[in-house]
Amino acid sequence: MSSKLSQTQITGLLVQAKQQKKLSFEDLGKAIGRDEVAVAAIFYGQHHASPEDIAGLAKTLDLDGNDLAYWLSGYPDRGNGVEMPPKEPLIYRLYEIVQNYGQAYKAVLNEKFGDGIMSAIAFSTKVDKEVDEQGNTWVLISMRGKWLPFSRF
Amino acid sequence: MSSKLSQTQITGLLVQAKQQKKLSFEDLGKAIGRDEVAVAAIFYGQHHASPEDIAGLAKTLDLDGNDLAYWLSGYPDRGNGVEMPPKEPLIYRLYEIVQNYGQAYKAVLNEKFGDGIMSAIAFSTKVDKEVDEQGNTWVLISMRGKWLPFSRF
Amino acid sequence: MSSKLSQTQITGLLVQAKQQKKLSFEDLGKAIGRDEVAVAAIFYGQHHASPEDIAGLAKTLDLDGNDLAYWLSGYPDRGNGVEMPPKEPLIYRLYEIVQNYGQAYKAVLNEKFGDGIMSAIAFSTKVDKEVDEQGNTWVLISMRGKWLPFSRF
Amino acid sequence: MSSKLSQTQITGLLVQAKQQKKLSFEDLGKAIGRDEVAVAAIFYGQHHASPEDIAGLAKTLDLDGNDLAYWLSGYPDRGNGVEMPPKEPLIYRLYEIVQNYGQAYKAVLNEKFGDGIMSAIAFSTKVDKEVDEQGNTWVLISMRGKWLPFSRF
Amino acid sequence: MSSKLSQTQITGLLVQAKQQKKLSFEDLGKAIGRDEVAVAAIFYGQHHASPEDIAGLAKTLDLDGNDLAYWLSGYPDRGNGVEMPPKEPLIYRLYEIVQNYGQAYKAVLNEKFGDGIMSAIAFSTKVDKEVDEQGNTWVLISMRGKWLPFSRF
Amino acid sequence: MSSKLSQTQITGLLVQAKQQKKLSFEDLGKAIGRDEVAVAAIFYGQHHASPEDIAGLAKTLDLDGNDLAYWLSGYPDRGNGVEMPPKEPLIYRLYEIVQNYGQAYKAVLNEKFGDGIMSAIAFSTKVDKEVDEQGNTWVLISMRGKWLPFSRF
Amino acid sequence: MSSKLSQTQITGLLVQAKQQKKLSFEDLGKAIGRDEVAVAAIFYGQHHASPEDIAGLAKTLDLDGNDLAYWLSGYPDRGNGVEMPPKEPLIYRLYEIVQNYGQAYKAVLNEKFGDGIMSAIAFSTKVDKEVDEQGNTWVLISMRGKWLPFSRF
Amino acid sequence: MSSKLSQTQITGLLVQAKQQKKLSFEDLGKAIGRDEVAVAAIFYGQHHASPEDIAGLAKTLDLDGNDLAYWLSGYPDRGNGVEMPPKEPLIYRLYEIVQNYGQAYKAVLNEKFGDGIMSAIAFSTKVDKEVDEQGNTWVLISMRGKWLPFSRF
Amino acid sequence: MSSKLSQTQITGLLVQAKQQKKLSFEDLGKAIGRDEVAVAAIFYGQHHASPEDIAGLAKTLDLDGNDLAYWLSGYPDRGNGVEMPPKEPLIYRLYEIVQNYGQAYKAVLNEKFGDGIMSAIAFSTKVDKEVDEQGNTWVLISMRGKWLPFSRF
Amino acid sequence: MSSKLSQTQITGLLVQAKQQKKLSFEDLGKAIGRDEVAVAAIFYGQHHASPEDIAGLAKTLDLDGNDLAYWLSGYPDRGNGVEMPPKEPLIYRLYEIVQNYGQAYKAVLNEKFGDGIMSAIAFSTKVDKEVDEQGNTWVLISMRGKWLPFSRF
Repeated sequence: MSSKLSQTQITGLLVQAKQQKKLSFEDLGKAIGRDEVAVAAIFYGQHHASPEDIAGLAKTLDLDGNDLAYWLSGYPDRGNGVEMPPKEPLIYRLYEIVQNYGQAYKAVLNEKFGDGIMSAIAFSTKVDKEVDEQGNTWVLISMRGKWLPFSRF
Repeated sequence: MSSKLSQTQITGLLVQAKQQKKLSFEDLGKAIGRDEVAVAAIFYGQHHASPEDIAGLAKTLDLDGNDLAYWLSGYPDRGNGVEMPPKEPLIYRLYEIVQNYGQAYKAVLNEKFGDGIMSAIAFSTKVDKEVDEQGNTWVLISMRGKWLPFSRF
Repeated sequence: MSSKLSQTQITGLLVQAKQQKKLSFEDLGKAIGRDEVAVAAIFYGQHHASPEDIAGLAKTLDLDGNDLAYWLSGYPDRGNGVEMPPKEPLIYRLYEIVQNYGQAYKAVLNEKFGDGIMSAIAFSTKVDKEVDEQGNTWVLISMRGKWLPFSRF
Repeated sequence: MSSKLSQTQITGLLVQAKQQKKLSFEDLGKAIGRDEVAVAAIFYGQHHASPEDIAGLAKTLDLDGNDLAYWLSGYPDRGNGVEMPPKEPLIYRLYEIVQNYGQAYKAVLNEKFGDGIMSAIAFSTKVDKEVDEQGNTWVLISMRGKWLPFSRF
Repeated sequence: MSSKLSQTQITGLLVQAKQQKKLSFEDLGKAIGRDEVAVAAIFYGQHHASPEDIAGLAKTLDLDGNDLAYWLSGYPDRGNGVEMPPKEPLIYRLYEIVQNYGQAYKAVLNEKFGDGIMSAIAFSTKVDKEVDEQGNTWVLISMRGKWLPFSRF
Repeated sequence: MSSKLSQTQITGLLVQAKQQKKLSFEDLGKAIGRDEVAVAAIFYGQHHASPEDIAGLAKTLDLDGNDLAYWLSGYPDRGNGVEMPPKEPLIYRLYEIVQNYGQAYKAVLNEKFGDGIMSAIAFSTKVDKEVDEQGNTWVLISMRGKWLPFSRF
Repeated sequence: MSSKLSQTQITGLLVQAKQQKKLSFEDLGKAIGRDEVAVAAIFYGQHHASPEDIAGLAKTLDLDGNDLAYWLSGYPDRGNGVEMPPKEPLIYRLYEIVQNYGQAYKAVLNEKFGDGIMSAIAFSTKVDKEVDEQGNTWVLISMRGKWLPFSRF
Repeated sequence: MSSKLSQTQITGLLVQAKQQKKLSFEDLGKAIGRDEVAVAAIFYGQHHASPEDIAGLAKTLDLDGNDLAYWLSGYPDRGNGVEMPPKEPLIYRLYEIVQNYGQAYKAVLNEKFGDGIMSAIAFSTKVDKEVDEQGNTWVLISMRGKWLPFSRF
Repeated sequence: MSSKLSQTQITGLLVQAKQQKKLSFEDLGKAIGRDEVAVAAIFYGQHHASPEDIAGLAKTLDLDGNDLAYWLSGYPDRGNGVEMPPKEPLIYRLYEIVQNYGQAYKAVLNEKFGDGIMSAIAFSTKVDKEVDEQGNTWVLISMRGKWLPFSRF
Repeated sequence: MSSKLSQTQITGLLVQAKQQKKLSFEDLGKAIGRDEVAVAAIFYGQHHASPEDIAGLAKTLDLDGNDLAYWLSGYPDRGNGVEMPPKEPLIYRLYEIVQNYGQAYKAVLNEKFGDGIMSAIAFSTKVDKEVDEQGNTWVLISMRGKWLPFSRF
């Protein structure tokens, strides 16, 4: 069994295996029954992988199952992958949406749902592609989070 | 014509008028043909209001059209409403999604779309409510942004 | 009806009324059926007050019910009261507990509960006093939050 | 005797030994007469281990006692394990409680105890699990700290 | 009774009264039985004043006792007076001592006292003046804090 | 002659030698005629060591004098040892004293000494232990700095 | 095929090869049909290189094409090369232009183009040299970005 | 003569006068012989206005020349108008260009000009509009700064 | 006697009086026997004014001596005038000199003077103008500070 | 030819060679016709070395000229050597001078020279020693920078 690796090394090995197999995150997601965003989040150490996920990834990526279980074992130390504010332009645009529309989301959500939050834990997300009639490409990001009302005590 | 107000004062007056009319952002959006999130963003000075929007809001909220045009004229100085990282729990959860899933979104979007970003300018968003079979309430946030490939030069 | 006040002004008026009535947060909590910490959080604009809470506070504090409803209406803009890291020694000690024991809490909670978080929304807290046999006074802070497992998607 | 290790390396070795023995922090705590949170804090270099603790851990984890004494000797350099504000969602929720309820805790504690602080040094904490009638799981965190009044001088 | 003042205003009034009476902090300290540093800390809202302190200050400074009680009532919101790192050269030098000698203090204190801290709450301090044989003036700052060992749990 | 080491490595070697000799900082200070805090500051690279200091330390710690001279040669790059604000609880308490009492020290010092600062360079400090009648242990920190009046120009 | 390198290593190898070939960025740009600024941005990992760019660079710099493809494959993680605010004087001057003229650019652009932004993605830039009649040398930086109006929704 | 105004008030008055006259920055620039960006920078207190500029602006905007001279007298306190990093999306895009291309600009400029900087003081800039064949609108920003070589000493 | 003013108001009044008298800082310095930089520092609340300075300024500026004494009484709260890092280009250049040459100054000063610092308290500075043979204007800034060796203890 | 070194390594090698030759920066400066501060800045990678400088240093320090040319080739990445605000007491004092006297320098320079800056690029500096009649040692720092007026455009 290989020794413990840093998250960067684990990510590197997974990305390399994926490139050699010429598989997309979507392919991997279909192979193991997860969404492609969740698979990418597992690659970057931001999402938990179940034993079945690990076994599926090992098989699909042709990696040693024990090694992979060893690398992906434990609970993720989430949030360390992205410096905030993000310097990467793609990620910054998402950050800017929160900065610009955060108050509007809060005003609308409080009005529609009351006093609470949309959970980022009981949460899923996915990404879609749309091409409009003029041939322009659009990204669709969908987020679905459980509404949690503040407890009364 | 009343004198120039601070954004906080303008927001206060709009919120007060909306409360007195017992109108939701959704009602206002339907009245002027905009999405409720866009209307809330106008209230907080994060979105541009066209002359038609201003006239519609003045009529629906029973406010003086000239005053409203005066208050909402000019181009928004966006982004100042939310301190980053956000202290407000509801807005923080959105920020946390970017922090946790930012890399995964980038990996999936680069794979699906190539080298570029999802625009936060050629962009729209909306909020929906879903109640599942167990009676749990879920928030659905949809974002739709134009894909912009990096120019080659 | 008086005009909209800043949170600092609302807090000032509530604290003044409480001092004049010589009531503790515990007294107020008993009078309206809430915990004393929740009452203090309402005073500082960090917790939502229901119409019944407002009516009860108005009666107990001998304040105009309409004014109070007007001041406390809306959804709190939480988190702005405390500069982080806290400069106030009492609040800093709580911050230091998170800084020192945060990893240990995470390790134990992950082990006992799996991959997830303790909610700070579906959450309540209370404060107790204990005097030990040597006559030393101890503070007991209890926190109770719902366990939210990360969704699989 | 092995050479001095970094805290990350010591933590890694302890975690690895614990995993191989399939022991929980609670098991370890019982074996050496400490609370499970204290044991986890020792693992992360945030709590002092007495010679008896070290001997007990060495025995239970089947590690060389001299090595362990060497690794855990000295006084912890506390606080470096968690970046503040925390990026990890579980730890952030604890931080958010301080941010949201800090003023309320201060107001209630000053009222109940006078001018002082709850010590984070003369302090203990523990974690419990509760399942309510609807089958929901709740986390209970208890903190007990000595009340220290400000000296008069 | 005058209305609530900001800390800056209270400090201003106390300083003005002290200047008009041509009293030093030392004079005030002697008049009310407190150390001069504690008196200055009361002026800046960083230390609690007891009813006797307030009565003594009111008498010595020829201020209305009820006003003073009103202004100085409540528990101080400590720590907000100094921006950190301090820009004021005199205060910066104290900060620099912590920055340069902090590790050395920790190493010596741990060695002499074990695992714990010097309390900043069960704490007093004073300032003295010394002129050496060459006619140079020296400042002596003495700090006395209770040693608090970390609890074992 | 061994190659240049990092400060962390030099500190490690000195601490290790001191532990093997079972000497305290006080012992070392007596052996070379320096205060124990100054010796600890030399260990952490925050204080200059004279050739005599180096020779004395080499002899007392049984280290090669040339190596030690090589490691400790040059002028310290002070201030890098402590992250500010300090995360370590013991050092934080000292920082908090500056934060809370900084203005009071300035007010008293200006009053007693005029317009100037207490030097942190023409400066010495020491640490003492006191046990009071109730058996409580107290830390005494004394600081002595030259008073430097601002030049008139 | 060599193993994955860090961006710093890749930059170092490219710079070294360019120096040995005594080629300027302008030479490289002409050789592969890109602007010199784009070539430099590829060197620093801030711009995507197409397969043709990679083949051209490999040929011109006499590097192994497979190695280069391997090193430059993937989508850049942009923005990490410059610490902000920049400490480097040349880059700081550009930052200062944004700081000083940012509002003026916004005012003029909003007036000329309406509510939107100049894209930094659908964007190109170049650098020219001008010598005026007095023999002074001037730098000309040209930026060309697509105007993106905010979407109405 | 009116009393001294804050920069925000001066900007407000100038913008209001400009709106009432329905003049663009370009109109104003032509009227007083300055570039439109320079005029906008004068409005925001980021650029010096000569007596002739002030007289020209007063005449064109129908403002009292003495008032305007009084408001615009003195040397600008530049740089305070934009919070960095900028939250405003339009200004952020310019900041992002520096962040992404800063190293590439430096590499190309050093190669073309030697060791030095492009001055942001001996500097001018202008903004142009271009519509391409597909009907897309582009922004052209030109910057021209004197090259300053580092002195040899 | 007028009431206490903020530093900004005091600065404003002094600047206004100076402008009306058409006096330079050099004129004022000569009138009261101080350097022009010291006079400007007094205007901005960064330098102490003696009773003679105050009387001289009052006379030269035709201001009420008691008012001026009242405004300038007390010890300056230095350092608050400049945000760091400075946004103002002129002040930033001075900051950049410290950033770029700080290590070189330290290396040369340690070599020439030993282990210590140049005092910024026992310190004076002045500004001169030089026009070279080519007609270029140069600024000369001279700083003179007492050398303070670190104490041995 | 040796491989590329980090700046820290290059600095280390230069300092070591200088120590072995028992040469001061002043000696080196005289040997190659540069000021001692410029030589120290070259050692720390903050100043450009010409081929003649490199040849002169190689000869004086008895280093391989090709190695030195290789190590010192390229344009410095200035500003990274000093963390800001500086923690090192000697460098902090220089920073504090900018913080305290920055506004005064600006006021005097604007008055004497108009609207512009003192260049930190077309700039030289030197350090002198003075012993006054009482035997006190003083540091003299002289800075000479070209005055750059803001362009009118």
